[in-house]
Amino acid sequence: MHNIKIEQTSQPKEKPAPDQLGFGHYFSDHMFVLDYTEGIGWHDPRIIPYQPISLDPSAMIFHYGQSVFEGLKAYITVDGEALLFRPDANFKRLNRSNERLCIPAIDEQLALEALKQLVAVDREWIPTAPGTSLYIRPFIIATEENLGVHPSKKYQFIIIMSPSGSYYKEGINPVKIMVEQQFVRAVKGGTGEAKTGGNYASALKGQEIADREGYSQTLWLDGKENRYVEEVGSMNIFFKIAGTVVTPELNGSILPGITRDSMIQVLKSKGIPVEERRISIDEVVEAYHNGTLEEVFGTGTAAVISPVGELKYLDEKMSINKGEIGEVSQMLYDTLTGIQYGKIEDSFDWTIRL
Amino acid sequence: MHNIKIEQTSQPKEKPAPDQLGFGHYFSDHMFVLDYTEGIGWHDPRIIPYQPISLDPSAMIFHYGQSVFEGLKAYITVDGEALLFRPDANFKRLNRSNERLCIPAIDEQLALEALKQLVAVDREWIPTAPGTSLYIRPFIIATEENLGVHPSKKYQFIIIMSPSGSYYKEGINPVKIMVEQQFVRAVKGGTGEAKTGGNYASALKGQEIADREGYSQTLWLDGKENRYVEEVGSMNIFFKIAGTVVTPELNGSILPGITRDSMIQVLKSKGIPVEERRISIDEVVEAYHNGTLEEVFGTGTAAVISPVGELKYLDEKMSINKGEIGEVSQMLYDTLTGIQYGKIEDSFDWTIRL
Repeated sequence: MHNIKIEQTSQPKEKPAPDQLGFGHYFSDHMFVLDYTEGIGWHDPRIIPYQPISLDPSAMIFHYGQSVFEGLKAYITVDGEALLFRPDANFKRLNRSNERLCIPAIDEQLALEALKQLVAVDREWIPTAPGTSLYIRPFIIATEENLGVHPSKKYQFIIIMSPSGSYYKEGINPVKIMVEQQFVRAVKGGTGEAKTGGNYASALKGQEIADREGYSQTLWLDGKENRYVEEVGSMNIFFKIAGTVVTPELNGSILPGITRDSMIQVLKSKGIPVEERRISIDEVVEAYHNGTLEEVFGTGTAAVISPVGELKYLDEKMSINKGEIGEVSQMLYDTLTGIQYGKIEDSFDWTIRL
Repeated sequence: MHNIKIEQTSQPKEKPAPDQLGFGHYFSDHMFVLDYTEGIGWHDPRIIPYQPISLDPSAMIFHYGQSVFEGLKAYITVDGEALLFRPDANFKRLNRSNERLCIPAIDEQLALEALKQLVAVDREWIPTAPGTSLYIRPFIIATEENLGVHPSKKYQFIIIMSPSGSYYKEGINPVKIMVEQQFVRAVKGGTGEAKTGGNYASALKGQEIADREGYSQTLWLDGKENRYVEEVGSMNIFFKIAGTVVTPELNGSILPGITRDSMIQVLKSKGIPVEERRISIDEVVEAYHNGTLEEVFGTGTAAVISPVGELKYLDEKMSINKGEIGEVSQMLYDTLTGIQYGKIEDSFDWTIRL
């Protein structure tokens, strides 16, 4: 058994009103912390009151970006139970990210147990209004006090939790995205498939350009040929072309999204043809021109599904499905959120009820 | 005038013995801090006792890697004066990194003034033994408490300083480096030319492989074709081929090293042919085979010059200049360190005496 110490807060915070939540602004009363020291390993798992992190200015996280993170959610089901969606998949991916970033692996079972206990302690922080959830952010930072460039000898693994509002307040709203030409998010051999800070820092510039042109996100092409579709900002991307759903294969520079994987499994279970393969932007444009580009959507933990209503590439603005959500997108959204809120049976064994 | 507040420490630390210094382990008594808040701009410049940084666990630096840094040195000259080497170039580059990372530009004049005052306050921390120096680390971190992915609305610009030992205790020792095949450091359109944490995090894996194979650093090829030489771990790279010194041109994915630039200027001033251009690893191998690869060396703030005694590519181990430092490498080392320690005249106007 993992001996996780729990120190309850003596000053519980006031919870924000459900319509004030937004994303990532408010944090629950407690956090989980686990330390790593070279020669000792991961040690001292504890749940403590939510509090600042105090580090020496030479701590490596401030200089060399050695960090990884995850994102998942806890939901209150229609039966009033607390539910986690595929947390085991998140901790498995965290360890894959660790491997790429030279961070020592965590004990996935300990992490899952810690998360369950943390959610239990802060259960009242899971919002209950329709569409709301408790966003969970596990992350690891390099904390050794040393300016030499080498893998850190000290780390902290931390889990914080943030009550989050409904992503779609007024029904599902298709987004406009644009293909980035000048900047690159990731390249094969780089860190693209790891969930690490540098990928997000690198992508900010594309987002800035998209904002300026009135688009909500960037569609990234591959870093080698600037030709093959990779992913959208913080989402994986899917195209429905002539009845078949196509998504870029995991090639080393694409984040292996857990929502992406869930969508593929749902599509297969429904008998809808789905392909993971290389897809060029030219193929997408051609499908648009010959009328077979039926749906485009992004997938991710935050929104589950983001239908794409307009896709801009070079000077061409492609309107997808008249700017409305498509049938398959809607089905996927209903199925996944149905499972997450306990409205429909979880035949995939994805959920853990606390 | 910039009004920089100074709070002197009441508890000065003991200074480490000169032979204990190493690199990046010890820090001086004070640090400089400048805050940024959206709507206000950079504000509240202050020199305060060296102390921990306390941040909310949701501070963006812990999640999305939005950070930049610099590295430079202060020296005590043979005349006993404190000297800075090209600090203006560092703050100019910091602002170029800021631009790529969507961080608001700093006032370079204020930064320089702050640095001068900080070095003056901690002047006793500049070690005086031969080859030692005070390593200076300016850095900027994103501090907004928010899990949304966007440029932070709050930052801290901090300068810390670390007395550093002589890089070459027993004469200049050529290093063995190997060409990385599997992993990639950076790609055109990415963040390679910015001095940001993610580049260093990405490169750790190559370093791990080099360590395992008995090499001290990784030579990175370009991310698109895996063919053109980019840079070595934390240094820029130069090849002397048939009398001409060649270094990869600044193509967007290579760090624009200030030592690199200084070396090019010194070479030109001495009438030695120098070319900044694309150079493939095949050209290097060919030069080795036909006997024209005369010298290979890396350049950087820490070591000034690192002669390369062995270069490994695929299964071939190329011994350079019989594993000894070459004439040009030695001349460049002597010239640059001569200027830095005030032994020879600074005809380039690179140094600032305090």
